[in-house]
Amino acid sequence: MTEGAPSAAVVSVGNELLFGETVDTNAAWLGRELTTLGIPVVRRYTVGDVAEDIAWAVREATEMTDLVMVTGGLGPTPDDLTKPTVAVEFDLALTRDDLMLETLKARYGSGGHDEVPLAARVQAEIPEGSTVLENPEGTAPGILLRTRNATVVLLPGVPREMRAIVKGALRPHLEAMRPVHAERVWHHVTHTTGIVESRLTEQVEARMAELPGEIRTPVGVAYLPDVYGVDLRFSASGVSRDEARARIAPLLDAIDEVVAPYRFECASGDLAEAVSTELRNRGMKMATAESCTGGLIAKRITDRPGSSEVFAGGVVAYSNRVKVEQLGVRVEDIERFGAVSEAVAHQLAGGVAALLHADVGIGVTGVAGPSGGSVEKPVGTIWIGTSVRGEVETFLGHYSGDRETVRARAGQAALASVYRRLLNASKG
Amino acid sequence: MTEGAPSAAVVSVGNELLFGETVDTNAAWLGRELTTLGIPVVRRYTVGDVAEDIAWAVREATEMTDLVMVTGGLGPTPDDLTKPTVAVEFDLALTRDDLMLETLKARYGSGGHDEVPLAARVQAEIPEGSTVLENPEGTAPGILLRTRNATVVLLPGVPREMRAIVKGALRPHLEAMRPVHAERVWHHVTHTTGIVESRLTEQVEARMAELPGEIRTPVGVAYLPDVYGVDLRFSASGVSRDEARARIAPLLDAIDEVVAPYRFECASGDLAEAVSTELRNRGMKMATAESCTGGLIAKRITDRPGSSEVFAGGVVAYSNRVKVEQLGVRVEDIERFGAVSEAVAHQLAGGVAALLHADVGIGVTGVAGPSGGSVEKPVGTIWIGTSVRGEVETFLGHYSGDRETVRARAGQAALASVYRRLLNASKG
Repeated sequence: MTEGAPSAAVVSVGNELLFGETVDTNAAWLGRELTTLGIPVVRRYTVGDVAEDIAWAVREATEMTDLVMVTGGLGPTPDDLTKPTVAVEFDLALTRDDLMLETLKARYGSGGHDEVPLAARVQAEIPEGSTVLENPEGTAPGILLRTRNATVVLLPGVPREMRAIVKGALRPHLEAMRPVHAERVWHHVTHTTGIVESRLTEQVEARMAELPGEIRTPVGVAYLPDVYGVDLRFSASGVSRDEARARIAPLLDAIDEVVAPYRFECASGDLAEAVSTELRNRGMKMATAESCTGGLIAKRITDRPGSSEVFAGGVVAYSNRVKVEQLGVRVEDIERFGAVSEAVAHQLAGGVAALLHADVGIGVTGVAGPSGGSVEKPVGTIWIGTSVRGEVETFLGHYSGDRETVRARAGQAALASVYRRLLNASKG
Repeated sequence: MTEGAPSAAVVSVGNELLFGETVDTNAAWLGRELTTLGIPVVRRYTVGDVAEDIAWAVREATEMTDLVMVTGGLGPTPDDLTKPTVAVEFDLALTRDDLMLETLKARYGSGGHDEVPLAARVQAEIPEGSTVLENPEGTAPGILLRTRNATVVLLPGVPREMRAIVKGALRPHLEAMRPVHAERVWHHVTHTTGIVESRLTEQVEARMAELPGEIRTPVGVAYLPDVYGVDLRFSASGVSRDEARARIAPLLDAIDEVVAPYRFECASGDLAEAVSTELRNRGMKMATAESCTGGLIAKRITDRPGSSEVFAGGVVAYSNRVKVEQLGVRVEDIERFGAVSEAVAHQLAGGVAALLHADVGIGVTGVAGPSGGSVEKPVGTIWIGTSVRGEVETFLGHYSGDRETVRARAGQAALASVYRRLLNASKG
């Protein structure tokens, strides 16, 4: 965060959040929204429907940041304590807003009720001197008030209502706060797969240590791992995205050699998208023959709209009978080498491409666990075959983790193999 | 919260949380887990990868609660600051744990690497006097330490790893903290599918309104919807699970008639498990022919260990050519009725059961979107066929939502249909 730029805090109110009955997607949404506006969220507080706790969090947040977004506890029921608590905390009387009362009357009237319920009339009371933010989606309006240190915004907890207020009535207030010519932080993300976080970190950090300070210093690097791979997030500040990009570019160039063997490119960060794009660019279709991954690769490819252009179909060859009868795997090879073997992966990949008239075939056979492992072929042993225009390659992977993780990693490795082969074929 | 009972705080660490790139599901999961153990979470803090902010939150939390769970910032990279920051905050030296170094060496060794990367060696350093909590899913172990006021637990941010540690090595420590003879809240969950939340709520609440207070009052009812259905969660307090069960049972009996048509039973709440159990009990195997769901049903069934006993295999019949050549769908029916039609769903279900020698077949064909819809067959139009021992039934579903949601709902509806048919066949 640049010195002098405004910062924000989010206070989420509700027992259901603490008990874990509700996942706080509001806080994440506000984080993205405010970051984009150049008002980064630097802290979040989550408290229950308890007046002292709400008061503490809001007080703390106004002392630490310029903008405090409070979500939840704004409805008409007795456990909605946000408004009265904030009023007491900042010594503001609650007064009835006649215009809002009329709006509420109209809204309840339109719902077929004759008069505004008592509980809802409470919603027409607002702290003196505050601004009402219209809620086009519900009855609880947002409220904006200014304390000595900060701007405090009270918002309902229902995501749809909260978002409508932020994008609507609150928007001009946020625009007015954002620094016009100030720098903000921009990100560039590079996706990688096929290398573990610790090793990637070591290699990237070693390369960066050799670089002059003027390349290294302006850029922050974060390593974001998940089961599929590691995202590298580069952050730099700038008045514009282009300015930040210009600061990040020399570092990207300098570490390119280290990252390139594992990098893939696509907007979503999903390797299935990157593979689909490469297939589409070449006018090619893919088919899958999956044993232990059981349809997982087909699902990932067809998760994407328009997948019929690049996906011919697949066979979930869970039993040996299906492998032999449908895909032409040789019985004698299964008997000799086992279903989890290089020969079977080879024939699955080639067989499914031929059967479904596809340019590219994937064959996966392995031990996903938790049972079925042996000394020679422990859980996590997976043979993968890829066929590109009739030429089959195979490799053996050992994937750690539970069944779900082993399957996810094996599917990712198969897609990564197809991706590299398609890219290399273009180069050659 | 009972007076004197222990309370907990959760501190979530990571810029990606503040920026909203990641939704904090860990905090919700911990909230549920700790509530179940009788150690309610009373506050949550979310801070970025900034040492002072981490220190502030942990210090604050230890002053307010008995148990502080810190997630994230525990990996091997330079932006992982949790461990050194907490060590400094509580004035504890970091010392190398030789046993853990050996474990890490073994883990990296088994991955085919010769030595432990420098970055990962950092993970073998722990604050003096703290307890290492084994991480069966990754390299960053959990760490438990006791401060003057509270117990502090450091956990990795990767959900799978965090959960494994809490359910494994941390469990006895949490059990030791919980109040032995106090009443706590117990839950009973009934899974339903095939009815929308508002309708289920209306029917259950109407039935409950007729019940005497002594049946209704001791039990809290929550409706927890997701894309697959609605879970009904019944809560009652009791010293033991049996005592709470005895309070919940009369209410369950009273609403049984309303819920039974939609209920399914299994430990995980995943209908694929319930279907697998029914197939296994009958010695039957299933096969799937999926067009628009693209392998999603096969994946869900094979997500479960031991699925080879109940799953013969599947065909992802994405193109008409695969439908005709592999599954025997009649070309003239596709031409006359279209690929999304009752006739095609019927032939897919029957065809795949015959092809793969299965007792049960599922056929799904529809428009998942976002494109491909028409006035007659808008996005969300899905024909589903189920074949049980050669007898095929079909039904038409209209599912709302984006592509992912439509596919998920269609897959669930197909499984629900098989589940009901298996149960009804046993009764008849």
